[in-house]
Amino acid sequence: MEYAMSETDAMTAAGSYEPTERTVPTRSRERASYDRELVHAILDETYLCHLGFVRDGAPVVLPTLYGRVGEVLYVHGSTGSRPMRMAAQGKGVVDGAREEAPGLPVCLTVTHVDGLVLAKSAFHHSINYRSVVVHGTAHQVTDPEELRTALDALVDHVVPGRAADSRPGNAKELAATAVLRIDLAEVSAKVRTGGPNDEPEDAALPHWAGVIPVQKSYGTPEPAADLDPAVALPGYLAAL
Amino acid sequence: MEYAMSETDAMTAAGSYEPTERTVPTRSRERASYDRELVHAILDETYLCHLGFVRDGAPVVLPTLYGRVGEVLYVHGSTGSRPMRMAAQGKGVVDGAREEAPGLPVCLTVTHVDGLVLAKSAFHHSINYRSVVVHGTAHQVTDPEELRTALDALVDHVVPGRAADSRPGNAKELAATAVLRIDLAEVSAKVRTGGPNDEPEDAALPHWAGVIPVQKSYGTPEPAADLDPAVALPGYLAAL
Repeated sequence: MEYAMSETDAMTAAGSYEPTERTVPTRSRERASYDRELVHAILDETYLCHLGFVRDGAPVVLPTLYGRVGEVLYVHGSTGSRPMRMAAQGKGVVDGAREEAPGLPVCLTVTHVDGLVLAKSAFHHSINYRSVVVHGTAHQVTDPEELRTALDALVDHVVPGRAADSRPGNAKELAATAVLRIDLAEVSAKVRTGGPNDEPEDAALPHWAGVIPVQKSYGTPEPAADLDPAVALPGYLAAL
Repeated sequence: MEYAMSETDAMTAAGSYEPTERTVPTRSRERASYDRELVHAILDETYLCHLGFVRDGAPVVLPTLYGRVGEVLYVHGSTGSRPMRMAAQGKGVVDGAREEAPGLPVCLTVTHVDGLVLAKSAFHHSINYRSVVVHGTAHQVTDPEELRTALDALVDHVVPGRAADSRPGNAKELAATAVLRIDLAEVSAKVRTGGPNDEPEDAALPHWAGVIPVQKSYGTPEPAADLDPAVALPGYLAAL
């Protein structure tokens, strides 16, 4: 048993995030994972996250786009938007006191819904999902090189290959854009798969039970009003 | 002009939520709306929200299901889960001080992605979306009647008609389930529609631009392993 524990620890260091008090769920621990590959796969499958921060002591959750470069996530916004100004000004509230150092405590969450789980009992209804929760401190990116890398990552995260097929930001646009960096360090994934877990005594109830898969797809591309009809849909978009 | 303003105020009282300092965005105000019908429509089109609260001074954002009954949202969880215990114990942190009265300050956000907006310039890339942000205080539902109404609403919000076609919770199940109530009072919607807003000087650039619609659909229902084959898929599920 001792050996098994050491082996697990070694695996954690290599391929997993270190669990912390706040990334170990109080419920359904068997659904939690700290595996880096799983976390990256969940993060890379979509582009929309829900970013939480604390403003005047109260929680704020905003939907926003993100990009990933290795173990770093980037979110962006106007330099005038609230979380961007708060990160630049270090207006996070930690333990009730204003934190004066730069950085904004955030929680960034990404969720895929894979199916509706319908059970014979109301109580066992659920959804199949994959989610990632990232805790950390968001810091404003100030290095011009990292800023360009981050903006390319944000564009490419929505459609891989798109950054190279668009005009890069000019000086005025870059000055109007703030990017926050969040390190992937305190991270957990949670996954539910499979059918409903009804009680054995409910087996004979006359209610249909099972999973209704939820799917996402792309519709027919709609060209912009000012698009030259001679510009064909590129392959990486047709492939969506 | 005076008359026009009064008329707007009257409309706000009847069909809209009252804007507050934190529901008026600092950016893209033209995309914000306080219209009740729009807010309800966005909330009723899906069942997954991202619920934010403050724990030990730091933000936490968790995906969870919700239901709506008029101007009230319900979220549920195990009685042992963190936000449920915090709401029951009144452990919200407001203005840096522990709030001893019951209730947990929350921000509940729902987002639909309707399309990827690809512009000729990286800067003008965006997504078409509809979101609702609800600020408020979550209170634990203790009235047994309201608890049953809330649980039915949660099940019916995922699949309308499902609550009546499943076994209701028994005493043990109800005791294991905590439900939080959040009033729809401080609420805003935000909507982006339409194509990319490229700069006129970028019109001739050779990059494809436009909108790629994002669609959600349901796959073929997968019956549970223990489902009696004689139980047919009911009409309200086939209609999905």
